Amino acid sequence: MGLMSEAFSQTLIPVCALIGILFALVQWFLVSRIRVASSGPDSYEDQLIEEDDEQVEGIDSAEVVNKKCAEIQNAISVGATSFLFTEYKYLGIFMFVFGVIIFIFLGSVKGFSTKSEPCTYNEGNLCKPALANAIFSTIAFWLGSLTSVLSGFLGMKIATFANARTTLEARKGIGKAFITAFRSGAVMGFLLAANGLLVLYVSINLFKLYYEDDWEGLYESITGYGLGGSSMALFGRVGGGIYTKAADVGADLVGKVEKNIPEDDPRNPAVIADNVGDNVGDIAGMGSDLFGSYAESSCAALFVASISSFGIHHDYAAMSYPLIISSVGIIVCLITTVIATDVVEIKTVSEIEPSLKRQLLISTVLMTVGIAGVSFLVLPSKFTLFDFGADKVVKNWHLFFCVSIGLWAGLVIGYVTEYYTSNAYSPVQDVADSCRTGAATNVIFGLALGYKSVIIPIFAIAIAIYVSFSLAAMYGIAMSALGMLSTIATGLAIDAYGPISDNAGGIAEMAGMSHRIRERTDALDAAGNTTAAIGKGFAIGSAALVSLALFGAYVSRAGIKTVDVLTPKVFIGLIVGAMLPYWFSAMTMKSVGSAALKMVEEVRRQFDTMPGLIEGTRKPDYATCVKISTDASLKEMIPPGALVMLTPLIAGTLFGVETLAGLLAGSLVSGVQVAISASNTGGAWDNAKKYIEAGASEHARTLGPKGSDAHKAAVIGDTVGDPLKDTSGPSLNILIKLMAVESLVFAPFFASHGGLLFKYL
Amino acid sequence: MGLMSEAFSQTLIPVCALIGILFALVQWFLVSRIRVASSGPDSYEDQLIEEDDEQVEGIDSAEVVNKKCAEIQNAISVGATSFLFTEYKYLGIFMFVFGVIIFIFLGSVKGFSTKSEPCTYNEGNLCKPALANAIFSTIAFWLGSLTSVLSGFLGMKIATFANARTTLEARKGIGKAFITAFRSGAVMGFLLAANGLLVLYVSINLFKLYYEDDWEGLYESITGYGLGGSSMALFGRVGGGIYTKAADVGADLVGKVEKNIPEDDPRNPAVIADNVGDNVGDIAGMGSDLFGSYAESSCAALFVASISSFGIHHDYAAMSYPLIISSVGIIVCLITTVIATDVVEIKTVSEIEPSLKRQLLISTVLMTVGIAGVSFLVLPSKFTLFDFGADKVVKNWHLFFCVSIGLWAGLVIGYVTEYYTSNAYSPVQDVADSCRTGAATNVIFGLALGYKSVIIPIFAIAIAIYVSFSLAAMYGIAMSALGMLSTIATGLAIDAYGPISDNAGGIAEMAGMSHRIRERTDALDAAGNTTAAIGKGFAIGSAALVSLALFGAYVSRAGIKTVDVLTPKVFIGLIVGAMLPYWFSAMTMKSVGSAALKMVEEVRRQFDTMPGLIEGTRKPDYATCVKISTDASLKEMIPPGALVMLTPLIAGTLFGVETLAGLLAGSLVSGVQVAISASNTGGAWDNAKKYIEAGASEHARTLGPKGSDAHKAAVIGDTVGDPLKDTSGPSLNILIKLMAVESLVFAPFFASHGGLLFKYL
Repeated sequence: MGLMSEAFSQTLIPVCALIGILFALVQWFLVSRIRVASSGPDSYEDQLIEEDDEQVEGIDSAEVVNKKCAEIQNAISVGATSFLFTEYKYLGIFMFVFGVIIFIFLGSVKGFSTKSEPCTYNEGNLCKPALANAIFSTIAFWLGSLTSVLSGFLGMKIATFANARTTLEARKGIGKAFITAFRSGAVMGFLLAANGLLVLYVSINLFKLYYEDDWEGLYESITGYGLGGSSMALFGRVGGGIYTKAADVGADLVGKVEKNIPEDDPRNPAVIADNVGDNVGDIAGMGSDLFGSYAESSCAALFVASISSFGIHHDYAAMSYPLIISSVGIIVCLITTVIATDVVEIKTVSEIEPSLKRQLLISTVLMTVGIAGVSFLVLPSKFTLFDFGADKVVKNWHLFFCVSIGLWAGLVIGYVTEYYTSNAYSPVQDVADSCRTGAATNVIFGLALGYKSVIIPIFAIAIAIYVSFSLAAMYGIAMSALGMLSTIATGLAIDAYGPISDNAGGIAEMAGMSHRIRERTDALDAAGNTTAAIGKGFAIGSAALVSLALFGAYVSRAGIKTVDVLTPKVFIGLIVGAMLPYWFSAMTMKSVGSAALKMVEEVRRQFDTMPGLIEGTRKPDYATCVKISTDASLKEMIPPGALVMLTPLIAGTLFGVETLAGLLAGSLVSGVQVAISASNTGGAWDNAKKYIEAGASEHARTLGPKGSDAHKAAVIGDTVGDPLKDTSGPSLNILIKLMAVESLVFAPFFASHGGLLFKYL
Repeated sequence: MGLMSEAFSQTLIPVCALIGILFALVQWFLVSRIRVASSGPDSYEDQLIEEDDEQVEGIDSAEVVNKKCAEIQNAISVGATSFLFTEYKYLGIFMFVFGVIIFIFLGSVKGFSTKSEPCTYNEGNLCKPALANAIFSTIAFWLGSLTSVLSGFLGMKIATFANARTTLEARKGIGKAFITAFRSGAVMGFLLAANGLLVLYVSINLFKLYYEDDWEGLYESITGYGLGGSSMALFGRVGGGIYTKAADVGADLVGKVEKNIPEDDPRNPAVIADNVGDNVGDIAGMGSDLFGSYAESSCAALFVASISSFGIHHDYAAMSYPLIISSVGIIVCLITTVIATDVVEIKTVSEIEPSLKRQLLISTVLMTVGIAGVSFLVLPSKFTLFDFGADKVVKNWHLFFCVSIGLWAGLVIGYVTEYYTSNAYSPVQDVADSCRTGAATNVIFGLALGYKSVIIPIFAIAIAIYVSFSLAAMYGIAMSALGMLSTIATGLAIDAYGPISDNAGGIAEMAGMSHRIRERTDALDAAGNTTAAIGKGFAIGSAALVSLALFGAYVSRAGIKTVDVLTPKVFIGLIVGAMLPYWFSAMTMKSVGSAALKMVEEVRRQFDTMPGLIEGTRKPDYATCVKISTDASLKEMIPPGALVMLTPLIAGTLFGVETLAGLLAGSLVSGVQVAISASNTGGAWDNAKKYIEAGASEHARTLGPKGSDAHKAAVIGDTVGDPLKDTSGPSLNILIKLMAVESLVFAPFFASHGGLLFKYL
């Protein structure tokens, strides 16, 4: 037994979660002290245009600016809320139906019998009936779905609450604006991390009332929580991603390229849809995504632990090791955030990126100490883990290495991503330079950059996998993933900072604020672009580890002893699995393309048929554009969603557990490459364009200014990158995780009834 | 024993090979009857320009045109020959050094001992010493290299011999021109197929003089032949691919985009380099590539057979089954070709594509009959195959299914590729349509098309693998690959037809021939674009099967019983292997990009500093452009080449046989996706552009004409696609095959001395 008592660990987890929530509320309170004029929800459009006429050189009175910002913020918030509610209506139906599917599949494993059965792993004991597993898995699925939806929704609310406030603070200086955006990001980060932990903790304790000593059944059904979290995340990422990029691409193609009006210009009919998109895609989608990773790695670790010595000997404190790691992570992130907001002060633009990068480093160093403490206090000095049928003897310091290597691999991935996507380094500058010879070379160099950026992250992931796999089998992998996610609150804060700054810049432009203020918000935004790429790097890296852990748990639960590539069943799974990310990307990219075409037609129509629009004397019809994005994203998210949700069910039912195992391994090793290269290519193009626009160096000025041929070529690259980096790339994380967790949840069914095709052939 | 005697099968193989060679010579004779004026090698440039001035409306006297064509053809031939000789000088050094490496590695397995050893598989018998294996593997490697180089060189010679003749025949009509181009392709196809078979057959019989009854050792050392073939192919594809695309992209970016002069205009300084590139890249590179696939699948099948009952019982006829299948393939292709050249006559442009497609169908149907015959005559009705340590009982009709399913899977892949890359169908038309909104949507739609085009080929490959794997283990896979390649002569003829027509068009343009003739050569070229894509589809599909067969042979030879994804060593191999195609593509694409940038600078420099160039009164400096392409390709082919050649050596030596097995599986399942999507995306962009240019339908005319915004967007897509479809995509086939065959050759060394890192950690 470890040194920490059960009672202490039982208290530590909820206390840390509550501290996290409290801290988020304090940050929210600090942000909310920035006064924004209240406005009715319907008035913004008229006013936006009418006051545009009065304004001279973009300098209004403070009162007018404040009011305008409030109105725009309100419009964005209303649009985002309305989209999310429509989306959630569809997701509600899906949640209900899929819950029923889970119940039927899992219930049928033992023919809906209510009789207790001998346990699968701990064969001497009696376990609860399969029917109970069906019921509780369904409940856990719903809980996970609701928590995920809540996470996304809260994130969106916070972001739309913060963006106008960031704009207004930008009038006082870059430091103030930065703090506002960063604090708001922190609200989201801490709420999500703490909330996820708390719901999981409470669910386990409630489920325990029924399951009592049957920990095997308890933690098996808890995996439904991860499935719920991830399936909502899938639709959030895909739907949100299509929404935001259809609007963005559509707005840019007509506004920037054809009409030569600036980004976020209020005359562009798609501008509100574009800003709404940032919040439903980058914020709500990403919040759900990282919550899903967190929930899944916790569930994977808990499941493996439950069939290891912790579970068999009912060592509650050791069993809670994954949750305690996350609890300590919240405290570490809290300290890190306080350093950023209250200890160090940002004075100039050039300090923003280093400051955000320092956040990552500080949280990683502190967390390493935290992991050491938890590993030695909570874990027994020696214990055995389930290792595909065999027992593996593990020491507590082994686990320290597993968790730490995941954490540090995350840092490496973050830094490499920054190197390949920030325009402070040569890769992006080379891409910008290639714009000299036109869009074609820009696209070629950008694609090559994305491919190249895969190398080091894959080595980092491979080393993390090798070390944690060798030391502590699948439990090691799951804990390595949790290590990477232990500083999730800081990661999310940094990540959410990006779209908040982006929107703040949009609001400044739409409210007609002065050039100086736009410059400040642009600087915030440029740093945000890089941090968003870093966030995506984390999301992908952790997804790779999480899926592997889930894959291991699935294989254990399905009773497979080896996944041998040299058997036809496994190999065809492997090669078809490696194809799935391409199929999925083809769907999402084509969806963005088609939706963007519709948006372009509509924006062109408005400019052509509504006289006065381009002169700014008449307001555009924002609502139609919002509707196009909404309809397109809701309709188009179904096929890729169905591909991901149905593939494991079909493969497991028709081809059996081995083919499904191959499929999961194939989609994992192939998907992670596509995801990393897509995200980084897109990020690099975006920043290559910003590099030319900013003209901050001698070299950059030879390529610019805005409107030059090189800049036009850069804009084309940026537009191509939009669906890559914000739709298909990030959705692929969820593809690989979700298929794995779904397979795990349905494993009992596949193991007993799967492989119909081979049975009857 | 089968029904066919040893003596008969011993005779059948060389006779079929000689018939193939004879048939190629007859075709050559028919092509050579078209008279082309002879010209000195140095005179073409002056004449080209001087006579341009005299000419009115592009209509010269027949004599002048003939002379011009001869000169241009000569210039291209001289350029291509000189590049290939320079390339072969470097490759010669590589061949020598790598041969020595093979000798040292394999010789050291048993410390260069000359003592006979007990056999690995057939343990009762004595086998030749490891040193003999080292010597003969090295010799086989050199033989394979030389045959590959010869194949590429012959192909290039034939193509440059044929292109001006095709141009001249185009004056007489579309049918004559088609026959000339197709016949010339056939010369190459038959020479390569027959030559590869003959050299392999002779080598086996010569090696047998030493090895006598030690078939295990004999066929193990013969695998060096495959390694030699593929390593030359790698450098051929990569070097040739960089050469051709640097010239093509460079010529287009300045000529077509900036100066608005037509493709292949003699005023463009890069035009000769571009045409030389088609021959060294698409012809010589592709010839080496398919020869490599053929050599490797034969070697893989022979190796597995040698450790199965055929080898153990010394059943020579059954042992020669793979070679007999290829021999029959030559006869089948001969019949198919005669149908195309002498039975059916092409009268209109629209008949070209269906006629080429029909060739594929006819050869597939006839070959199926041939396979049935061979399987029942040559194979015993029942025999046992080596299946990773176990024995598998197989019937002769099982093998019929294995070979046939490979053959038919190839046809499916060919037809799907045609669907996704020909502008007769909606996918390419949709891409063309997306040019309406600019280059960005064109690129997005093109990438999505490439991703989507992966789906059916992967299912076809998966089904072929499942069936042949289940029926006859790794021997089944190898035979399935050989089945796909059994109609290689027809496949190569169709494939080579493309670049020959492309060059014929180039010569017509440069010789200033009339618009009507250009239209004819353009039509030939458009069909050639699609067939080139089909050829690439075949190359990739067969590469996937071949690599799997080689992978299986490697695993057998390395003595691995299972390749379990659930072990850390294998898994890290898998994920790093899946990353390699990206690393490799990043290198090759960046190489093309950089070389193209240099070419652009040079072409611009010539236009800027040489007055009279654009008016056509002064000849450009073609030689400097040729030199840029040559230097760039020779320098830039080294890093990707080293990546592929060194990775198996490093992985095997440091990490051991399991990690290397994972690596091979990972690079196979990931590389095949990247390769297919890259090839098809590029092909689709090229034909989308041609669709707009040709303006053959109502829809196409709304997008055109040449020079419209939509057409400009299409040109950008086409340029991006160039390195994807002609450099990185096709090179990836070789990456996956070559790493597998190299691992197989070095397997004895890795098995006895590999895994140093894990041993000492």
